[in-house]
Amino acid sequence: MEKLFGVTTAMVTPMNEKGEVNYKELERLTEFLIDKGVNCLYPLGTTGEMFKLNVDERKKVAETVVNTAQQRVKVFIHIGAMTLDDTLLLVNHAVSIGATGIGAVTPAFFPADDVEIEAYYQAIAEEVPNNFPIYLYSIPQLAGNALSPEVVKRLAANHQNIVGIKYSYPDFLTLKDYLSVRNNSFSVLTGSDSLFLPALAMGCDGVVSGVSCVFPEPFKEIYKLYSQGELAQARNVQQHADNIIQILKGGSNLSYFKKGLELRGIQGGSVKRPQLDLTIEEEKALIENINSWKRKLSLVELLE
Amino acid sequence: MEKLFGVTTAMVTPMNEKGEVNYKELERLTEFLIDKGVNCLYPLGTTGEMFKLNVDERKKVAETVVNTAQQRVKVFIHIGAMTLDDTLLLVNHAVSIGATGIGAVTPAFFPADDVEIEAYYQAIAEEVPNNFPIYLYSIPQLAGNALSPEVVKRLAANHQNIVGIKYSYPDFLTLKDYLSVRNNSFSVLTGSDSLFLPALAMGCDGVVSGVSCVFPEPFKEIYKLYSQGELAQARNVQQHADNIIQILKGGSNLSYFKKGLELRGIQGGSVKRPQLDLTIEEEKALIENINSWKRKLSLVELLE
Amino acid sequence: MEKLFGVTTAMVTPMNEKGEVNYKELERLTEFLIDKGVNCLYPLGTTGEMFKLNVDERKKVAETVVNTAQQRVKVFIHIGAMTLDDTLLLVNHAVSIGATGIGAVTPAFFPADDVEIEAYYQAIAEEVPNNFPIYLYSIPQLAGNALSPEVVKRLAANHQNIVGIKYSYPDFLTLKDYLSVRNNSFSVLTGSDSLFLPALAMGCDGVVSGVSCVFPEPFKEIYKLYSQGELAQARNVQQHADNIIQILKGGSNLSYFKKGLELRGIQGGSVKRPQLDLTIEEEKALIENINSWKRKLSLVELLE
Amino acid sequence: MEKLFGVTTAMVTPMNEKGEVNYKELERLTEFLIDKGVNCLYPLGTTGEMFKLNVDERKKVAETVVNTAQQRVKVFIHIGAMTLDDTLLLVNHAVSIGATGIGAVTPAFFPADDVEIEAYYQAIAEEVPNNFPIYLYSIPQLAGNALSPEVVKRLAANHQNIVGIKYSYPDFLTLKDYLSVRNNSFSVLTGSDSLFLPALAMGCDGVVSGVSCVFPEPFKEIYKLYSQGELAQARNVQQHADNIIQILKGGSNLSYFKKGLELRGIQGGSVKRPQLDLTIEEEKALIENINSWKRKLSLVELLE
Repeated sequence: MEKLFGVTTAMVTPMNEKGEVNYKELERLTEFLIDKGVNCLYPLGTTGEMFKLNVDERKKVAETVVNTAQQRVKVFIHIGAMTLDDTLLLVNHAVSIGATGIGAVTPAFFPADDVEIEAYYQAIAEEVPNNFPIYLYSIPQLAGNALSPEVVKRLAANHQNIVGIKYSYPDFLTLKDYLSVRNNSFSVLTGSDSLFLPALAMGCDGVVSGVSCVFPEPFKEIYKLYSQGELAQARNVQQHADNIIQILKGGSNLSYFKKGLELRGIQGGSVKRPQLDLTIEEEKALIENINSWKRKLSLVELLE
Repeated sequence: MEKLFGVTTAMVTPMNEKGEVNYKELERLTEFLIDKGVNCLYPLGTTGEMFKLNVDERKKVAETVVNTAQQRVKVFIHIGAMTLDDTLLLVNHAVSIGATGIGAVTPAFFPADDVEIEAYYQAIAEEVPNNFPIYLYSIPQLAGNALSPEVVKRLAANHQNIVGIKYSYPDFLTLKDYLSVRNNSFSVLTGSDSLFLPALAMGCDGVVSGVSCVFPEPFKEIYKLYSQGELAQARNVQQHADNIIQILKGGSNLSYFKKGLELRGIQGGSVKRPQLDLTIEEEKALIENINSWKRKLSLVELLE
Repeated sequence: MEKLFGVTTAMVTPMNEKGEVNYKELERLTEFLIDKGVNCLYPLGTTGEMFKLNVDERKKVAETVVNTAQQRVKVFIHIGAMTLDDTLLLVNHAVSIGATGIGAVTPAFFPADDVEIEAYYQAIAEEVPNNFPIYLYSIPQLAGNALSPEVVKRLAANHQNIVGIKYSYPDFLTLKDYLSVRNNSFSVLTGSDSLFLPALAMGCDGVVSGVSCVFPEPFKEIYKLYSQGELAQARNVQQHADNIIQILKGGSNLSYFKKGLELRGIQGGSVKRPQLDLTIEEEKALIENINSWKRKLSLVELLE
Repeated sequence: MEKLFGVTTAMVTPMNEKGEVNYKELERLTEFLIDKGVNCLYPLGTTGEMFKLNVDERKKVAETVVNTAQQRVKVFIHIGAMTLDDTLLLVNHAVSIGATGIGAVTPAFFPADDVEIEAYYQAIAEEVPNNFPIYLYSIPQLAGNALSPEVVKRLAANHQNIVGIKYSYPDFLTLKDYLSVRNNSFSVLTGSDSLFLPALAMGCDGVVSGVSCVFPEPFKEIYKLYSQGELAQARNVQQHADNIIQILKGGSNLSYFKKGLELRGIQGGSVKRPQLDLTIEEEKALIENINSWKRKLSLVELLE
């Protein structure tokens, strides 16, 4: 079954100042990322501001990415919504448009116990073909609910199309628990950009990275060096990656990603309120920081 | 300006098995609560499953409660949504239908810093008349974002229509910080049913209570006894309240409220998925527990 | 059996600059507190820097307080130590010198499971006469271990001399669980000075207060007003108390207590390193803040 | 300057049933570990129950390990105590007996702010020669205090003999912050046995491991394979290590280590109360689990 691996880019959703999706720039962003060689695309996750878009917008975003990608890279659509009904609409849509697979965050905000979380993923798993891959997604600090390793084990045992999990929390002991599922064959990706290399070393398949939406280059290089067994060099590049992760606030403020994209020639545009765009001062500081980072970068040749 | 006080009931939203709102039963629930003498109604909060309803449903729920209440009690509509756009639609609607005031949870799921949180509430405050009261609402364990006392102070200083806060977390030191806002005149209500009495003793105006949606009687009695200075008796009734709070799971599982309402003659119906209704066994145990509680209840005459 | 109640003062241990205990000033502090009318004394707790004193020092501190008090107030000695052996030495010593009772913090630093915590308190309970009262003490943010309500229930059921608990964490839901132990007759005191009044309202017997070691007056007044049913006035005084609690850092930095005591004519002296005494600037600011607080104080006549 | 690296074993302190140190078995344990080829020894840390031993016992334990090791491996003595005075006694003793270096946990239990923590380590750094290496040690879940990366940076800048840190918490983002200190040359070791391999991959120098006190073999093998660039095989061995870590409770209950040592021919003996020894049933289950682990172990030849 198809799986996420390597540099999986969590895509932002370009918008105009009113918060309307800019599909034209979304196409360009998709091309940009494929051109840069990322391994998989992951639109409509937290980085894509999914809960701030309605079902129709989410469908159209999904279509835009899948149609632009044209099978050149794997596209996993994040389909988790506030209600199971909306989730299932998006699940079926993802299948219908030819997505490679899907990801689904745990229920958010409203407390869900283990039975409810398991039933939620079971409903998703039963809605799609047996060979259509599904990723669980746990980000407890935002969703308020977490995926216990026990639930993951049961889901993996009962649904062959649940192939892996994206885990966006820096607790590596829990990450290890996920890796042990299905006899160590469960596919685990970290959602922490700066933990890409140690996650690979632990046996993870890759990273679902938001910063790689703006600067895919160092992430690609880390993956290449790691795959060649060049761990010391990979670590060196991870440090360069860490610097740009810090400059771009690592996903805690998506306006840094969107503004950063302008330096790559893509109009990321605005974040949807209540989140706010950068002030003039913040924008100026961002550009200076990025330029300073580029100058220090030994892998500068990668950046164009 | 109008403020929440005493027993403010956080209303559930009755639904059928498909998760469609049952407006008829919502009317009956509103009548039931007014008949029982609760002081204020608070529909469409966390107990009302707000984030699982769309804007049209939320408008119609708000209208149903306001129109049924007919000014007999204050009705504060919770209008917080995942986007500011939706929030403002609901704000304006609440004003237009003659609600007494509104409440608004912090931005949820997506991280919002203090500047963003303040801007969010400022946008709300500026959308309504100066004398239309607004309550902040902080429930950090679900929303992922919290209201720092500093932000609350600034908001209170700059917007006279921001009259208070509902705080749904059992940290009483922070609760005290909120109480000190605006020279100790800020209106603070606890969202923890079992902390009603100590919150009153600290100077809170009341409770926003989910359990009172099913059993308003002990909460009414606590407020009456406290107001009469009968603290020891109030504490005794709070213990009875604590027992039913525990039986009904205190809001962590809304299906207990909805099923409990059936014993009061209201069809609470189903919770919206991904949350699940009670199993047959859970339902049976619930009914037994409630009946046992009623038998032990010294204030049994209150219950009919 | 004797119990803690009202204003129970957690005493600092006066020391010289080398960290040696100043027993002379400890006597004077004991006299000062009795003179001011606090209800009970609680030496050698966290405020008393117990884990930084050796067994001999702790014995001599206990003797000094008991002998000076001369039965004029209850004296409960905190006897919890890093090992059970040391704890039992101190337990027996407390009994032998005629202390009213003892308090014992949970095991600290090294993880202890529920079985170990229960066995620890059982060993203490079995070491003393049946009518010698023992208080449990839970301060999980410092000790790393917590007292679950279930363990408290079992201990209360099996050992009649375990009469209550001091709980130094602002989670009022857990505080309520403790209050329900032994059919609501378990003696519970909050360790949070600023939560004295709401704790009383919940049914607590009083506060174990560090700030009252320096300024007992507002705490005494709160307790008096509360006992007379004057809740509104009690709340007003609690706000004055809150101000001095904030000025004195509420126990998070004991050098504020020790320096503050100098203004009352007691040489509190130094804290034992690794904690540090106040800098000249901090000391100056402290004195200004205290004087400013006194001026604003409507109950100034209380302060002589 | 000498640094910790590879498999640094956090040694238990063998004791008899009364909690008295068994120095004879401590010698044998030291020989056992050197014989098994661990890279460094770290007695008297959390695994060594340091806060439950008095200064004289700690000195004698330190001497026993240093004298037995006879320079065959590096020995870093953990010297952190509840007071700075005791800490400095132990610091000087460690220097005097020819230890390779020392480690020092943050102040524990009593809150210490950044200024106090920095002053504490400064006092230690100034007490020893410039070329005598010191490791910081942060275990916030037990000590209640944490080492912020900023404090670590300042300490590293001002004291060349502060060469590194042991970090016993699974937050890898903070671990990365520590690694960036002193231009990425700061020596960082994880205190989480099961994170040995990913920590190495991040650039850590090794692990301070408690489980390696009982079964050094898989840890040695992980380090060897990692050093040879055999990451996939190293990961495989880490999984075997994880199993025995789980069986031995990973340090959360030291009686598992002490009982496990008996199977290696060392009398680990009792833990010091309030912690408890295993029950007969727990002991039986432990032995079965260990034997089952050995049978499954592909590296069985390592275990003789």
